[in-house]
Amino acid sequence: MYSLKEFKNIFDPMLEEFLDERIGEYLQNYSGPLVKDLSLHGKELVMHAGKRVRPYIAYCMYKASGGEKDEKAIKFFVSLEVFHMFLLIHDDFMDKAKLRHDTTTAHEFVYNRLKTLGRKGDLSHVADSQAVLLGDLLFAWTCKLIDLNKDFPSENLLQVKEIFYKTLDEVILGQMIDIDLTTQNEPDLKLIDEKTLLKTAYYSFIRPMQMGAYLASLNNGFDKFTKDFGTIIGMTFQIQDDYLDIMGDPKLLHKNILEDVSQSEPTFFTNYIFEYGKAEEKKELISVFGKKLNDTKRKQIKALFIKSRAICAGEKVIKENIEKAKKIVEKTNIGNEYKKQIIELVNKLEKRQS
Amino acid sequence: MYSLKEFKNIFDPMLEEFLDERIGEYLQNYSGPLVKDLSLHGKELVMHAGKRVRPYIAYCMYKASGGEKDEKAIKFFVSLEVFHMFLLIHDDFMDKAKLRHDTTTAHEFVYNRLKTLGRKGDLSHVADSQAVLLGDLLFAWTCKLIDLNKDFPSENLLQVKEIFYKTLDEVILGQMIDIDLTTQNEPDLKLIDEKTLLKTAYYSFIRPMQMGAYLASLNNGFDKFTKDFGTIIGMTFQIQDDYLDIMGDPKLLHKNILEDVSQSEPTFFTNYIFEYGKAEEKKELISVFGKKLNDTKRKQIKALFIKSRAICAGEKVIKENIEKAKKIVEKTNIGNEYKKQIIELVNKLEKRQS
Repeated sequence: MYSLKEFKNIFDPMLEEFLDERIGEYLQNYSGPLVKDLSLHGKELVMHAGKRVRPYIAYCMYKASGGEKDEKAIKFFVSLEVFHMFLLIHDDFMDKAKLRHDTTTAHEFVYNRLKTLGRKGDLSHVADSQAVLLGDLLFAWTCKLIDLNKDFPSENLLQVKEIFYKTLDEVILGQMIDIDLTTQNEPDLKLIDEKTLLKTAYYSFIRPMQMGAYLASLNNGFDKFTKDFGTIIGMTFQIQDDYLDIMGDPKLLHKNILEDVSQSEPTFFTNYIFEYGKAEEKKELISVFGKKLNDTKRKQIKALFIKSRAICAGEKVIKENIEKAKKIVEKTNIGNEYKKQIIELVNKLEKRQS
Repeated sequence: MYSLKEFKNIFDPMLEEFLDERIGEYLQNYSGPLVKDLSLHGKELVMHAGKRVRPYIAYCMYKASGGEKDEKAIKFFVSLEVFHMFLLIHDDFMDKAKLRHDTTTAHEFVYNRLKTLGRKGDLSHVADSQAVLLGDLLFAWTCKLIDLNKDFPSENLLQVKEIFYKTLDEVILGQMIDIDLTTQNEPDLKLIDEKTLLKTAYYSFIRPMQMGAYLASLNNGFDKFTKDFGTIIGMTFQIQDDYLDIMGDPKLLHKNILEDVSQSEPTFFTNYIFEYGKAEEKKELISVFGKKLNDTKRKQIKALFIKSRAICAGEKVIKENIEKAKKIVEKTNIGNEYKKQIIELVNKLEKRQS
């Protein structure tokens, strides 16, 4: 059983090898420059993107369920990271984001490239289109990787695929709701819950854990655990994201704070102000929804979240939930070695700065 | 062996049943109105979209290769139509198209809906985002449908899937090149050929034909035929598309003419003017690239294409190619019953008005 750090050392080279192979094949029929640059930028985005939480938690459950083909399982979970980058590329286009970690987002990369090349037309729209296509491509590669795998018994693969296809529906629905919420004058609280459950709890935790468990064993007995643990850690992960958007360090976040608020995204903290805030606090918050913020305004809005006690309430919920999540792990009938690694992952998530 | 008309009568209800089932499952976790409306509009787009050329040519080759499970094969080829609509939805967003056949395009539908609902924000961008997600969803459903099929021997399915995943790379690359071409001041002729081969010959003919043939038999012996026939009919199909964009009847096309030209798309006809046209003809053509055209301007540009003899040259190439395609069918070692249907399909394509 590898720690997250050891896991990354094996996972990242496999991911890179996979991308190199796919990109090589992809460019066989192509003689121009732009698509080549774009594919290589796609690779850079995937390689820089991160924490590898989804493949690692899948791997943890694979091991906890008695899986013994570590290398092959890790190779299979490369699919989760490639899929994740497909989603992020489409999300970044939708959010008009310029940076993903410390790398230029796909659409922004194409836009700059077209400008440099002196191209004509609605370059911002063309750049968006190319980014959407790069996302489509990574999605295609994910499906191929999952579909054609032969390293595991076919009954296990069938079960894992069923879960994967559920995930697709869930995460796309979550994103549709998310975007819809940004246009609502008074965000529908029920829809916010549906979105968070789908986009964070199911997508980032419950489904990857289930995929790992069923890849190792059809009778893994972890359905309740993955759901209980995944729900609480997923909801907390979302509140943390919302928290970092207000209280995070822009240098570590590699983006400005309050971007969600400026995109009118309803969060734990905006909801808190709507529910418990004073009339003037609500008014101040609404006044910046959908607006671009300068530094002075950012300071002011950050102070608003602190003063209204939304931050304090959020910190409390995060702390309590992390404790609950750990207790769920402790109480589950799972080998100590695996418990230790999952709790370590929870600790890492608790301390995350980005 | 069903004729195209008989095929449609079986195919369309299967397609509808598939969509109803998937949409029903998709909306289970959703309590709002917009995503529901959007999914149902997606269904309308698929059902209205048309000619069913790709599933039918796949079916023809399935039969010609000895396939006998007609219903099951037709059910499998539903995937090709769902996949096609995924591509069209993304293409329409990229082309800023307002109509697809006589139905509002996905992004345009969402935009109108959000307006009616009095929503706030950058509604055009939100509508684009929702359309991209609807496309992603149809893509996901395609992959599930293909991956989890159990109606055919697994060796055949494996071969068909390999072809399908090749198609994904090819069609996405074709679209990336296509969009890139619209920004080039002097379109790269080699790239235009690569694009047409990928987007039309391979995507619409060669690959569906191969999928049909291999679904029935691993030793179908039709590799050369599918490639020869698919290349010539595909290239012709593209020239026809370009032709209809100039000479078509807007009522039958359900869109204005000269939309490709106004999107700066290089076509057989723009290339003809660049290669053989007079200096003032080239200048006139360049002056409308990327511009919105009014009726007077449209008449003028249509006249330019006729006067420069580009139209005449195109008509000749189409006619010659159609004859060549038919000869390839005649000469191939394929049952007469199947020859007849394929030639009938070619005749239908020759006469198409949209």
